Amino acid sequence: MSAGPEIERLIQLLSKLPGLGPRSARRASLSLLQKREQLMIPLADALAEAAEKISACSTCGNLDVTDPCAVCRDHRRDDSVICVVETVGDLWALERASAFRGRYHVLGGVLSALDGVGPEDLNVAGLIERAGREDVKEIILALNATVDGQTTAHFLADKLAEASVDITSLARGVPVGGELDYLDDGTLTAAFRSRRPA
Amino acid sequence: MSAGPEIERLIQLLSKLPGLGPRSARRASLSLLQKREQLMIPLADALAEAAEKISACSTCGNLDVTDPCAVCRDHRRDDSVICVVETVGDLWALERASAFRGRYHVLGGVLSALDGVGPEDLNVAGLIERAGREDVKEIILALNATVDGQTTAHFLADKLAEASVDITSLARGVPVGGELDYLDDGTLTAAFRSRRPA
Ligand SMILES: [Zn+2]
Ligand SMILES: [Zn+2]
Repeated sequence: MSAGPEIERLIQLLSKLPGLGPRSARRASLSLLQKREQLMIPLADALAEAAEKISACSTCGNLDVTDPCAVCRDHRRDDSVICVVETVGDLWALERASAFRGRYHVLGGVLSALDGVGPEDLNVAGLIERAGREDVKEIILALNATVDGQTTAHFLADKLAEASVDITSLARGVPVGGELDYLDDGTLTAAFRSRRPA
Repeated sequence: MSAGPEIERLIQLLSKLPGLGPRSARRASLSLLQKREQLMIPLADALAEAAEKISACSTCGNLDVTDPCAVCRDHRRDDSVICVVETVGDLWALERASAFRGRYHVLGGVLSALDGVGPEDLNVAGLIERAGREDVKEIILALNATVDGQTTAHFLADKLAEASVDITSLARGVPVGGELDYLDDGTLTAAFRSRRPA
């Protein structure tokens, strides 16, 4: 190899990041080597610091430098609603949108026969425990509108049936700004089924 | 922000990598946080190690852990031919294709009126010095087939006119507007075989 084992190792690690293939990993590593002070060293430091400081919240599964996380510690948030999401990325997306001011619960994935993900691989026990607390009134199942996401939502609704909480899920329909032309059939069908007075 | 300043900093640094926008940088940082032992810590270490060990070769401009670099130190390579490239990425591309077994010279860019890049910003002096050495018979100008690349090739051909070397350029196997880094091995090899006087 032309680039030497140190650079090849860097390329190989970068190519494991989602969104970076082997070719773009090579370009990224070259860019890093050419911006050593501005980018490479700061990124090495930021990664080491994050690896040292950040961990999963033992309450909700969010990633933060504190446990409980900032969301769980925020006293202004509504304790009576828990929004169940698949991943921390989904939690971030909802926070960016300021779509929700209650608490979260990160499942850590969805049930998948294909990928061999069963209930024991997800944080289901923690959710059931939280759902049983007196102040919790509603659990929102904000799972992806995929087959596995919906299978998981049904599974959770079953499991939570004994808790005295309302179980809801996000509305299906045409996204804000969405053009019908670009939507898939499933979305269009769901939007039609849930049509309401204008 | 939901993700906290440490994670936001990581996202911000990752988004400076070519090929990663803000959205994919967020996904990448989440993936890193979820694969701390397998990916995040190894990447932090690889970056720190590369930043510490790797520098530009004082002869050719290649990036390596040694100076002179492995290409310059390889006694099996042909001293009589120097291939001039814009970037280390181009050098890597030619090495991956095994298209060339001589020496290299990395210019560090191309002349560009628009970007304010003049001859003094490129490693032109080093090239002229190397071209004057007795054992050098040929300089291959393997610059990108862009307007700036070709302007730079003409400039260098002028500058090298006094040295008693053949000045060649890659055949028009390189598509107009094409960048070496993006070409397949066969095209690169064919372009080398058909190189002609500049
Ligand atoms: Zn939390
Ligand atoms: Zn060298």
